[in-house]
Amino acid sequence: MSADPVGRACLLVHGPDRPGLVAAVSDLVARIGGNIVALDQYTDDPDGGAFFQRVVFDLADLTASLPAVEEELGAVLRPLGMTWRLRDLGTPLRMGVLASLSDHCVLDLLWRHRRGELPVTVPMVVSNHTTMADDVRSFGVPFVHVPSGGPDKSAAEEEILRLLAGNVDFVVLARYMQILSPGFLERLGVPVINIHHSFLPAFIGAAPYRKAKERGVKLIGATAHYVTADLDEGPIIEQDVVRVTHADSAGDLQRRGADVERAVLSRAVLWHAEDRVIRHGNHTIVF
Amino acid sequence: MSADPVGRACLLVHGPDRPGLVAAVSDLVARIGGNIVALDQYTDDPDGGAFFQRVVFDLADLTASLPAVEEELGAVLRPLGMTWRLRDLGTPLRMGVLASLSDHCVLDLLWRHRRGELPVTVPMVVSNHTTMADDVRSFGVPFVHVPSGGPDKSAAEEEILRLLAGNVDFVVLARYMQILSPGFLERLGVPVINIHHSFLPAFIGAAPYRKAKERGVKLIGATAHYVTADLDEGPIIEQDVVRVTHADSAGDLQRRGADVERAVLSRAVLWHAEDRVIRHGNHTIVF
Amino acid sequence: MSADPVGRACLLVHGPDRPGLVAAVSDLVARIGGNIVALDQYTDDPDGGAFFQRVVFDLADLTASLPAVEEELGAVLRPLGMTWRLRDLGTPLRMGVLASLSDHCVLDLLWRHRRGELPVTVPMVVSNHTTMADDVRSFGVPFVHVPSGGPDKSAAEEEILRLLAGNVDFVVLARYMQILSPGFLERLGVPVINIHHSFLPAFIGAAPYRKAKERGVKLIGATAHYVTADLDEGPIIEQDVVRVTHADSAGDLQRRGADVERAVLSRAVLWHAEDRVIRHGNHTIVF
Amino acid sequence: MSADPVGRACLLVHGPDRPGLVAAVSDLVARIGGNIVALDQYTDDPDGGAFFQRVVFDLADLTASLPAVEEELGAVLRPLGMTWRLRDLGTPLRMGVLASLSDHCVLDLLWRHRRGELPVTVPMVVSNHTTMADDVRSFGVPFVHVPSGGPDKSAAEEEILRLLAGNVDFVVLARYMQILSPGFLERLGVPVINIHHSFLPAFIGAAPYRKAKERGVKLIGATAHYVTADLDEGPIIEQDVVRVTHADSAGDLQRRGADVERAVLSRAVLWHAEDRVIRHGNHTIVF
Repeated sequence: MSADPVGRACLLVHGPDRPGLVAAVSDLVARIGGNIVALDQYTDDPDGGAFFQRVVFDLADLTASLPAVEEELGAVLRPLGMTWRLRDLGTPLRMGVLASLSDHCVLDLLWRHRRGELPVTVPMVVSNHTTMADDVRSFGVPFVHVPSGGPDKSAAEEEILRLLAGNVDFVVLARYMQILSPGFLERLGVPVINIHHSFLPAFIGAAPYRKAKERGVKLIGATAHYVTADLDEGPIIEQDVVRVTHADSAGDLQRRGADVERAVLSRAVLWHAEDRVIRHGNHTIVF
Repeated sequence: MSADPVGRACLLVHGPDRPGLVAAVSDLVARIGGNIVALDQYTDDPDGGAFFQRVVFDLADLTASLPAVEEELGAVLRPLGMTWRLRDLGTPLRMGVLASLSDHCVLDLLWRHRRGELPVTVPMVVSNHTTMADDVRSFGVPFVHVPSGGPDKSAAEEEILRLLAGNVDFVVLARYMQILSPGFLERLGVPVINIHHSFLPAFIGAAPYRKAKERGVKLIGATAHYVTADLDEGPIIEQDVVRVTHADSAGDLQRRGADVERAVLSRAVLWHAEDRVIRHGNHTIVF
Repeated sequence: MSADPVGRACLLVHGPDRPGLVAAVSDLVARIGGNIVALDQYTDDPDGGAFFQRVVFDLADLTASLPAVEEELGAVLRPLGMTWRLRDLGTPLRMGVLASLSDHCVLDLLWRHRRGELPVTVPMVVSNHTTMADDVRSFGVPFVHVPSGGPDKSAAEEEILRLLAGNVDFVVLARYMQILSPGFLERLGVPVINIHHSFLPAFIGAAPYRKAKERGVKLIGATAHYVTADLDEGPIIEQDVVRVTHADSAGDLQRRGADVERAVLSRAVLWHAEDRVIRHGNHTIVF
Repeated sequence: MSADPVGRACLLVHGPDRPGLVAAVSDLVARIGGNIVALDQYTDDPDGGAFFQRVVFDLADLTASLPAVEEELGAVLRPLGMTWRLRDLGTPLRMGVLASLSDHCVLDLLWRHRRGELPVTVPMVVSNHTTMADDVRSFGVPFVHVPSGGPDKSAAEEEILRLLAGNVDFVVLARYMQILSPGFLERLGVPVINIHHSFLPAFIGAAPYRKAKERGVKLIGATAHYVTADLDEGPIIEQDVVRVTHADSAGDLQRRGADVERAVLSRAVLWHAEDRVIRHGNHTIVF
């Protein structure tokens, strides 16, 4: 009867700044017997700005205690006008993946997952092409083909929704080349992370590497962001760049950019999976 | 009577690609007794593209030989439809500087010049403010104040033209905050290098750091480019970025960006001064 | 009589980890009426490791309250075996500078200081050469020449101690080329930051750029570290690198390295001046 | 009868510098009807140093012409004391891979190869473990298990030699954890590229990430180099680094380092496969 294993929880708190918030939250954690392992805090303006805090703490018998902790949080934080999110880090998030033809981002995520670098489960990869079916399944991950279905995407979106909704905690567009309808995002109801193959806001929209070649830039980049109704305008999670020269063709840019894309996307997914990212307006706070 | 000191020349050749061009140019250099010290060559498309070559060679009695070499070049390259530029690297380019209030780019250029890192002379710094007069003069460089003169810039531009035209081989806009008229550029008649405080084409125009803060980017950058009639649209010479976080204020971005600006500008100026940059359409080839 | 201006304080806490430490410290800050502006916390091992915390808080009438706050801190933290450091961030640290012939690090620090980027005062620059006297003084900073004095450095060290001890809160060796005796460090009694012109632990000791050229490395770097009795072995604060190629001569490496040196040193100095660095064994925690 | 397809050749020339070398080589290429596509040239000292040149040229009916071209090269270059290497770039190099347990470098190479990013063939992967057999074979590449065989490695080395010698043009040690005997290298007779998991010359030998954690460095790196008889001392082809903090455990360093390792190794392999690397003493010239 070796009960009470120690679990690790992550608490995100977010709302209007006021004196004593850090103390209130850390008191609460101490009162319930938690041991703070990591704490990050940020205030965007000490005079009446917004307050952001991430606390990771160890707690004996975490699973059983979560409801009581939630209740305590409500009692303390609701009167202060704060929103919060509490999660047992021992229960990994379920990551759905939407893909098309390019495999570099999908395979990199699955490969990192297999190495134990990404604390998620992967219920399935859905693609409008069949080319990477074998590769995906070789990782023990289900692959489902949903053809994009011509100009009217609604049937395809319906099927994707039927597959993903309720089965995933967030979705990654791993170089998924279909535009999603605003209604889809709303009905999906979980965060969606996209990788855009440029250093946003440069080269919004299609064919960024061609545009980069035309403009003659000396660096190319990639941007991971949450998807919103506005194409390529959602809150940025992570970006990076790599140096190129006049001698790189548009094909070279694409090849070199693929490395940046998968690196940037994997960092964004990791941070999201570890509850390190808080959305605030069109920005992200990344702890 | 130790005459004939060895000089170092730089030859840039540029035009339609065809077989034998490298051989034709290096033959010519060999025939006149030059010793090739560095050679870079680039063809943007082996099938009928453009050809670019930079050759640095040592030649005894260079100054006296230049006219003869020019004549030889014309005989070889003109029939091939090539343009070229030959320069004695022992005669540094004369760099004019236009500045406003920010001193970080100007002082970095002058300091590098004093250390012997920039092979140029600096006939003068012209500013529409007087704040950096003492600092500039402490480097032994003349400082001239030309007030911007209200809505009508034409008188100020006339005076700047009178000061610079004929006295400089290129002009650096070292965070110069006045828009130059197209006519000014034309009458100046020498290349103008600008440093823009963003990673172009992101955040074209005014206040890029504020825009970067609003968009929530995770990297900020700077771009050195040749000035054309289209604002912030000229050929890019060099770019770089630095990582920022949600915790950086717009002021922090400006401060951190200043470091990138001066680094990027100094590299662009160095490469221009060493004749490493060839403009081709709206691109640059940087050897 | 609008008394009680709000001040900003920084508190560093460091010692054996145990549950409730974050709560204890943030409670204390809340109890005395402080408003936490930034908080960073780190534990190197949740099971019996070391605990590190940095709290920045605003407090009315800070100067008058400091002694009382110190007393409270002692009452709370001493029983827990913690060490701490409390400082009014409104009182900048006094930075002494030791230099030799190379001016790039000294001038960059002074230039940043003048721009308001470094929250320090600079009581004096001491050098064993006179070459940069005018430049230093043009920033309004006293320059004192202390010749290195031949094989026996003791007289020179005595004079430097007489100048610096009691007048500075930390000392920067800005490419100071004299070896300091262990006794000097002890008698100086304040932290000393050195910039080493290599990516430590590669190329310890003299002439790192020559060694880098000989080894054929593809990146060169610089390291800012606290000085200890063991040459180039002290706790590292910051490092960075820059890409080089086979075509860079040892002189090129030195020139390009100088840019990395001044950038790395200025970051290390800034972080030290903002009390962001905690030494722990031969490591640093940089918040 | 559309015979004479155009092929692409790469010529590396290397030896004592003297005037006219570039002209001699490019003349030769012109004389045989080749069209120079890319040319890089470097002289480490214009006064009596060494000369390095890489020329890529297109030539009709290349395969048939190679012997004649070789003869011409000998006639021109042998009297000048130059060594050279001529290769038909249409015939990819054969890359053997030696691996142990870590799969990140092997899988990244195979995946890039499948994408068409590495112009090589992969006759086989040999490992002293069986764990990655399925993964390797899923790329259509043969996998051979050669147990390391206890303290006496000679039998294992014999078998590896039997498998590789004559079948590969170069060998990659993709995190191969066995020390190779000097005799092995000599008998193998082809270049061997190793990836070392540190920024050499820092942390030579075993367990570099543990050493990096102990030293408290702020960047970790990886180094691809040609293997010589001296462990970790061979000519460096490529290096890169990534930023880490005090909060990264030795395991984190290993994980983040793995990304740098595979990136650095893939660049080194690409450059070697494109004949861009010339060894000169303990250095490399990378064109």
